[in-house]
Amino acid sequence: MSEKTSQPRAGAAPASFSGPCNGAESLVATLVASGVDVCFANPGTSEMHFVSALDRIPGMRPVLCLFEGVVTGAADGYARMAGKPACTLLHLGPGFANSMANLHNARRAQSPVVNIVGDHATSHERYDAPLNANVTGFAEAISHWVCRSRSPRTVAADAARAVQAARQAPGRVATLILPADTAWLPAERPAPRLEVCPASKVSEGAVDAAAEALRSGRKTAILMRGAVLHGDGLRTAGRIAAKTGATLFCDTFTPRLRGGAGSPVVERLAYRGKDILRRLDDFGQLLLVGAAPPVSFFAYPGQESWLTPPHCEILTLSHPHEDGNEALAALAEAVGAPATGAVAPFEPPVLPPPGPLTAESVMRTVAALLPENAIVTDEGITSTLPYTALLATAAPHDYLPLTGGSIGGILPLSTGAALAAPDRKVVCLEGDGSAMYTLQALWTQARERLDVVTVIYANRSYAVLNQELRLVQAASGGERARSLLDLHNPSLDWTRLAEGMGVPAVRAETTQAFAQAFAAALGQSGPRLIEAVV
Amino acid sequence: MSEKTSQPRAGAAPASFSGPCNGAESLVATLVASGVDVCFANPGTSEMHFVSALDRIPGMRPVLCLFEGVVTGAADGYARMAGKPACTLLHLGPGFANSMANLHNARRAQSPVVNIVGDHATSHERYDAPLNANVTGFAEAISHWVCRSRSPRTVAADAARAVQAARQAPGRVATLILPADTAWLPAERPAPRLEVCPASKVSEGAVDAAAEALRSGRKTAILMRGAVLHGDGLRTAGRIAAKTGATLFCDTFTPRLRGGAGSPVVERLAYRGKDILRRLDDFGQLLLVGAAPPVSFFAYPGQESWLTPPHCEILTLSHPHEDGNEALAALAEAVGAPATGAVAPFEPPVLPPPGPLTAESVMRTVAALLPENAIVTDEGITSTLPYTALLATAAPHDYLPLTGGSIGGILPLSTGAALAAPDRKVVCLEGDGSAMYTLQALWTQARERLDVVTVIYANRSYAVLNQELRLVQAASGGERARSLLDLHNPSLDWTRLAEGMGVPAVRAETTQAFAQAFAAALGQSGPRLIEAVV
Repeated sequence: MSEKTSQPRAGAAPASFSGPCNGAESLVATLVASGVDVCFANPGTSEMHFVSALDRIPGMRPVLCLFEGVVTGAADGYARMAGKPACTLLHLGPGFANSMANLHNARRAQSPVVNIVGDHATSHERYDAPLNANVTGFAEAISHWVCRSRSPRTVAADAARAVQAARQAPGRVATLILPADTAWLPAERPAPRLEVCPASKVSEGAVDAAAEALRSGRKTAILMRGAVLHGDGLRTAGRIAAKTGATLFCDTFTPRLRGGAGSPVVERLAYRGKDILRRLDDFGQLLLVGAAPPVSFFAYPGQESWLTPPHCEILTLSHPHEDGNEALAALAEAVGAPATGAVAPFEPPVLPPPGPLTAESVMRTVAALLPENAIVTDEGITSTLPYTALLATAAPHDYLPLTGGSIGGILPLSTGAALAAPDRKVVCLEGDGSAMYTLQALWTQARERLDVVTVIYANRSYAVLNQELRLVQAASGGERARSLLDLHNPSLDWTRLAEGMGVPAVRAETTQAFAQAFAAALGQSGPRLIEAVV
Repeated sequence: MSEKTSQPRAGAAPASFSGPCNGAESLVATLVASGVDVCFANPGTSEMHFVSALDRIPGMRPVLCLFEGVVTGAADGYARMAGKPACTLLHLGPGFANSMANLHNARRAQSPVVNIVGDHATSHERYDAPLNANVTGFAEAISHWVCRSRSPRTVAADAARAVQAARQAPGRVATLILPADTAWLPAERPAPRLEVCPASKVSEGAVDAAAEALRSGRKTAILMRGAVLHGDGLRTAGRIAAKTGATLFCDTFTPRLRGGAGSPVVERLAYRGKDILRRLDDFGQLLLVGAAPPVSFFAYPGQESWLTPPHCEILTLSHPHEDGNEALAALAEAVGAPATGAVAPFEPPVLPPPGPLTAESVMRTVAALLPENAIVTDEGITSTLPYTALLATAAPHDYLPLTGGSIGGILPLSTGAALAAPDRKVVCLEGDGSAMYTLQALWTQARERLDVVTVIYANRSYAVLNQELRLVQAASGGERARSLLDLHNPSLDWTRLAEGMGVPAVRAETTQAFAQAFAAALGQSGPRLIEAVV
C-alpha cells in the first residue's frame, strides 16, 4: 500500500461512549472502533436511526450519493486507495439491488467493502409490506459474507465480524442486514475491533519452484495482481526481471497499478483473446503472483477461452489470499536479484499537433500533462484500451481501471478514490455510454468539492458493441440492430448534464481545445468535466 | 382492460420462418408468436445474436434504454397499460442486478414481464471471466419463474413457457437466462404460443358470503386491487355501492386506477398507518377484492403494523389470482344492484390564484388542465399524496402510482406507458430526489418522441425522510443527519439535466408560470419537462 492507514489496535476499547445506546449507535461506534470512518449512503426510513447516530457518535464521515450504484462504486474506489473498507448505507432490498452491479466490480477488484442494509423491523416482516423483498437472497448472491442481525444485543458483535470479514485477504464484500428494530432497541456496548488474519505466508516450496523455473532459461512471463502492483512487490518484481529477463505483466482489468516514471514497466494484457494468445506465444512459462491464468473476456464462436498457449507451463508463486510482496522478496533473494531494477524514465509524450480530436490525441494529452501522483481511473474501453501504454513514461501515478466489466463503475470509483486521497488529482477517463449508468456520481463530486477531472469520450455509440457484433459473427447491417448500439438521436450533451449536477463543464472538439481545457481543469480544484468529442 | 390487445391464437404456428435458425432467432420468433412485440433493451456482447435476430425476424420493436432500471420500469409501465408483457433484454449478472429494483415494483404491480438475460456461453462459464456472476441467484431472488436454457434446442420452448408464466394471473415476472451459445447455435423451429390459464373462477360460496355480509347492515368497506380498478369491475363495484351503501377503496400503492369524471369514486387509502386505522374505524367489515388487508408501509416504534381495526371483520371475495370482475358481477346480481351507480362529475378544480408555486397548486393545475384520457403517473410522495383527491373530478384518466416503494420507478414507467398508449398524453408527477435514480429514461422519451409531460417537484430534499426521521423517533437536529436528507449544495438543475438528454424543459416558480408551461406542454407532442420549484 502506498497510503499508510492508521488502524485502531485489535481489542482496544471503542471510543468512549457513555450511557445506554441503541443498536444503531452500537453499530456506528463499533465500525469507527474497527477503523471504518467513511460511510457512503443513500438511506431511507429503515436507516433513520443509523443516520441519527452519526450525530451522536463521533468519527464517521457521511457522504450522500443520489443512487446506490454510486454508493458501492465509491466504496470500491475508496478501498482501492485507502487500503481499508468504507461502509455503505443502503435501503432495503431495492436499495441493495441498485448497489449490486458495482459490488460486482468491487468483488472483482478484491476491494474490502462493508455494506449496512436496513430492512423492515423483525415484527413487520410477516406483513409483506410493499418494500419487503428477499434482501438476504440478494445479498447472498453477491457477497462473500452475509449476516442478518437477529437482536440489538448482537449488532455490535455482528458489525465487528463484518469488518473482519471484509478485511480478510485479499479483500471481500461483507453485508450486514439490519432490521429497523435492531437499530432502535437498547443494545450492548460497542464491540472492539477484531484481529484480521494477515495474508497467508507462501510456502518455501512455491518460492523454490519459482526460482528454479526462472533459472531454467525458459522465457518467463510474470503475471501479477493485487497489492504487489502498487507496493513494495512492484520494485521487487522489477529487480527479479532485471536479473532473470522475465517480462512483467498485469491482467487487463487489474484493480490498481502504480505506473509512470520511476516504476518498473508492467505490460497490461490486451483485451482481445487472440492478442493475448499471440503475446504469450513467446513464453515458455507463466509465473502467477496473485493472478489467475488469463481467459477471454467473452466467448466467441470457434475461439479459445483459455489463453495460455499449450507449450507455456503455468506455475503459481502466490494465490490472491497469500502475501505476494513477501513471496516476491523471497524469490528475489533466491535468484540473487540486484538491489535495483530498470524503471520507466520520465518521458511524457509531446502534445498532439493541432487538428480534430481523436481518442489517441486525448490520451496523448492526458499523458503529457498528467500531474505527479495523480490517480487515473479508466472505463474508456474502445477509446482508451489501445492507448494506455502512453501513460508508461508519464508522471508517476496510480491507474485504476474497471475490474468486473460492469460499466458504470468509474464515475463512482473516481468519487471514492478522490475522497480517500484528497491531496491527489483524479483524472477519470470515461465513455459516454458507460457514464450514463451512474452519472449521479457527479453531484457527490460537486457537493464534496472533490478534485476530479472527468473526460467523457463522446463517440455517441456503444462503440465496443459495434466491434462485438462482428466478433460474435452476428453481423447485421439492419436498422433495428444498429438502433440498439447507437447513441445519436438525440446526442447526449454532457456539459449540460454535468452543469445540472453542479459540475462546471466544457466541450472540446480539437486537440488544442482539449489541451487547453484539460490544463485549465488541472489548474483548478474541485470537479470539472470535459466532453471530448471524438 | 381498457386497451384491447390482439393476441395470436394459442397453438397457431409462428410467423413463417424459412430455413434453419439459431437460438436467438427461434427465441425472437417465439416471443412474437406469443404476443410479445416490444423489447426494452440494454444489450451487451452476449446478446448480440438476439440484437441481430431483430433484423431478420419481423414483428419485434426494440427500444434502447441507457440503464437497466429504465428497461424494467418501462416494461412495467407497458404491461400496466397494454395488459400484456413486453420483454426486456439485459446483459449478464450486473445488467440484471441494475434491473432488479424496478422488477420489484413490477412484481408489486402484478405486471407481467418477460426478462431475457444473456449470459456467458456454457463452455465459458467455468473460466470465471470478469463478468461472470451468480445470475441465476440474482434472478431467483426476484422472479416468480426462472429458466436457464441448457441447449439451443430448448430455447424456443423455454421462451413460450416464459411468456405463459408471465401471463399467469394476475401477472408475474418470468426470467429466461440465455447462455450466448444457446443463442448462436442451430436451434429448433420457433414454438407456438402456449395457452395461458385464465384467472380462476371465484366460488359461489365466496359470492354468497359477501352478499350476506353486505345485506347484514354492517357498514362495509370494499378494498379493491388489480384489473377490477380499471375495467368492468369498477362500474360493477359502483353499482354494488349504490345498492348497499358500501364505500369503495383502493390501496395506497395500487397499480392502476381509472379515475376522474364518469368513474365511480374510489377512495385511496392514506400512506400513514394511523390515518388508515382512523379511516377504517367507521367500518364493521372489510370486503377484499383482489387486495390484501392493509398494513403499514414501515414499522414504527410502538405503532401497529396491522391496520384493520379489531372490530372490523375481514371477508375475501376474490384473491389476486381470481377473476374479480366476474366475482363482482355475480355479487351485484346477488345483492340486486341497479343498472348504474353514482359516478364522479366533471368538475375540475379552478386554477390556483397567482402566487408562489406550492405542491398543492401544482396538483390543482394538473387536475384543472388534464386532457381527456390522460395517463397520470405519480411518484411525488410528499408532494402529491395529500392532493391526489383533486383528480377525482378531473377529466377521465388512468392513474399509475409507484407500487413497490422502490423510488426511481416513475420516469421509466411513464416511458413504457407512453409507448403502450401512443394516442394518450402521459403526465408524470415526480420528486427531484426520486427522479435522480433513473433520469436516463428521459433520453428514451426523446429518442422515441413519446408524449410525456414530466413535472419535477423540486423541493431539494428527501422530504419524506425529514418526516420519517421524526416518526421513527430518531429525531436529530445534527448536521451529519441533515446532510443525508438535504439535496441543496449543489441544487439540481432539472432543465439542464433534461436538455442534456434531448428533452425541452422550463422552470416554473409561480402558479401562473407553471400553468402556462403545463398548458404549453400539453399543446405540443413529444416529451417536455417542467421543473416546478416548490
